Amino acid sequence: MLLSKEDCRAIARHAGLDVLMDELIDRLTRAIDEYDPQRTSVLARDGFHYHNPYHGLLEWMPVMQVGDTATVKVVGYHPANPTVKGLPTILSTISNYDVTTGHLVGLVDGTFLTALRTAAASAVATRVLAKSGSDTVGMIGCGAQAVSQLHALSRVMSIDRVLFHDRDPKVAATFAERASVGGRVSARFDQTATAALVSTSDVLCTTTSVAIGEGPVFEDRDLRAWVHVNAVGSDFSGKFELPRSLLERSLVVPDCREQAQREGECQQLPPDRIDTDLVALIQQRERFVGSRDKSSVFDSTGWAYEDHVVMQLFLDHAREMGVGTAIEIESHTDDPHDPYDFIVSGAKSEVGSRESEVRS
Amino acid sequence: MLLSKEDCRAIARHAGLDVLMDELIDRLTRAIDEYDPQRTSVLARDGFHYHNPYHGLLEWMPVMQVGDTATVKVVGYHPANPTVKGLPTILSTISNYDVTTGHLVGLVDGTFLTALRTAAASAVATRVLAKSGSDTVGMIGCGAQAVSQLHALSRVMSIDRVLFHDRDPKVAATFAERASVGGRVSARFDQTATAALVSTSDVLCTTTSVAIGEGPVFEDRDLRAWVHVNAVGSDFSGKFELPRSLLERSLVVPDCREQAQREGECQQLPPDRIDTDLVALIQQRERFVGSRDKSSVFDSTGWAYEDHVVMQLFLDHAREMGVGTAIEIESHTDDPHDPYDFIVSGAKSEVGSRESEVRS
Repeated sequence: MLLSKEDCRAIARHAGLDVLMDELIDRLTRAIDEYDPQRTSVLARDGFHYHNPYHGLLEWMPVMQVGDTATVKVVGYHPANPTVKGLPTILSTISNYDVTTGHLVGLVDGTFLTALRTAAASAVATRVLAKSGSDTVGMIGCGAQAVSQLHALSRVMSIDRVLFHDRDPKVAATFAERASVGGRVSARFDQTATAALVSTSDVLCTTTSVAIGEGPVFEDRDLRAWVHVNAVGSDFSGKFELPRSLLERSLVVPDCREQAQREGECQQLPPDRIDTDLVALIQQRERFVGSRDKSSVFDSTGWAYEDHVVMQLFLDHAREMGVGTAIEIESHTDDPHDPYDFIVSGAKSEVGSRESEVRS
Repeated sequence: MLLSKEDCRAIARHAGLDVLMDELIDRLTRAIDEYDPQRTSVLARDGFHYHNPYHGLLEWMPVMQVGDTATVKVVGYHPANPTVKGLPTILSTISNYDVTTGHLVGLVDGTFLTALRTAAASAVATRVLAKSGSDTVGMIGCGAQAVSQLHALSRVMSIDRVLFHDRDPKVAATFAERASVGGRVSARFDQTATAALVSTSDVLCTTTSVAIGEGPVFEDRDLRAWVHVNAVGSDFSGKFELPRSLLERSLVVPDCREQAQREGECQQLPPDRIDTDLVALIQQRERFVGSRDKSSVFDSTGWAYEDHVVMQLFLDHAREMGVGTAIEIESHTDDPHDPYDFIVSGAKSEVGSRESEVRS
């Protein structure tokens, strides 16, 4: 099943963004609650990192439901995209393979879906860790991810005020419009200097493309004692957004411990300092009851398991709505012992082709 | 550009299998001759290995042309496929990404293309290493890969006689028909016991699914002094097909040294015993002039660079013939800073969509 950009648009329009995000937050919470490392295998992401012609990376993030399917997201991160190419920083596709045969079952956009699932993960963490009654959100970095992050937060907390900052004034200038269009997030939006922004927010969210060695993106001064931070931008060894002192005094919850210690805010902490993760946060909620009133950080590096959940959500909607294209990429044939058979036996193998579509 | 099974069929029918294989052997030889590790980055393949519900693996094989594109083949190896599902052991797809933006440029069948490129690699090695005048080929393992291996060999040597063996008599029974259909390989075909097969052949080819620990698939007795062996089946740690004594006295040329030492016949040799590879074989031909008259082994584990070459061949044919479907999977939009923009601005983003197709 191939879901094109058009299919994803149809699904989003049909369900509505709010409903889609609510479903995703609920499904992700449930999936994390049921997460069992015996039934789900997540491999560390790997990929190419380069500086030619632009700084960027292409990575794959594999996760397998044992005996069922494997989901592999391929994600490109190219900070020069918006300026040089008019494309988003993150471009991505998600593929799903049947691990009983190797068959490619589905191929879906990963750009929109990455924005959704990363935002939903922050919402899942925020719902557990933000102080009750939090109503002021500070956004540092106002690019594409900031739009979906704020939208997801608005589904789990009642937001009165959004303070925002981007080092690029042009990006900051359009943020309120992008974030609130169509009544998506109705709050007061104020462009604010970083120092005032961080001292006034109950919940902070960092989604920057800060360069390696140039972090943190704000100073640890006058933060609220109960501040909850969703740190979303870190995804490189050497890249981080938060001041170390904040991490040192806070509950730090990585989405995926190993990955966050390599690429996330957790890089700044000694390995034995991290004694929890998003799975523990949901599966052992009672451990974290007191955390709402203290400072906490969700260290989001992007977890392959989230890609699996969001892909399933879209495949389910596609099935229900009858959208999507049946794909037949692999040249398998009537005779599994003849790789050339499909060339000569056109008519025969059509039957195989249709059967295979039904199977997938 | 998405090339479906139908598109690959159209290309193979239009060009003809012989011409396609000749082109591939030539392109692969040239690509290996021009191979420069500064311009091409190949990552070790990685993946999931499992025994639930069947023994199998799903792996990705990444290669990048620096500053240009990255090709990632995802390949499933499921030996139970032919018996249990009526599918080939190997099912695969190949994707190509623009590493200046992360955009998915192409998606092509990898099943037929893997068979072609693996066979072409054996032909490239055989052309350099087989004794002049070799006319007898022995095939051990008569599944899908054997058909394409023999076809590729027939393009670089004049074959009078094909001796073949498969431990499954049903598979052996149909081999001559599969290999020679449509006049593909015209030679005398004789089903032969392994001992006689190996002692009579000038060129041997092993393409078995021998289980871990059950190799070798023939004994090292009475082999021709000049025998050249293409060992194609090994692709697992612990799996090998050849007797160690043959490897010890032969010139052993792995396609990709690191990978062959982990998964190929080279597992059986001490690491410092391997002092060459397919790149050296082609780039330093003069070093190997005397090797034709001695025994040699091409240790083929499947090299990601070969996938890149065969994909480019098919994309070039597709362009020339005007087949294939322009794909638009990623949901990028007019506003790179708004991941939701494409949902509301349907009409506008169509323009972006068409431009992006042109770009790719």
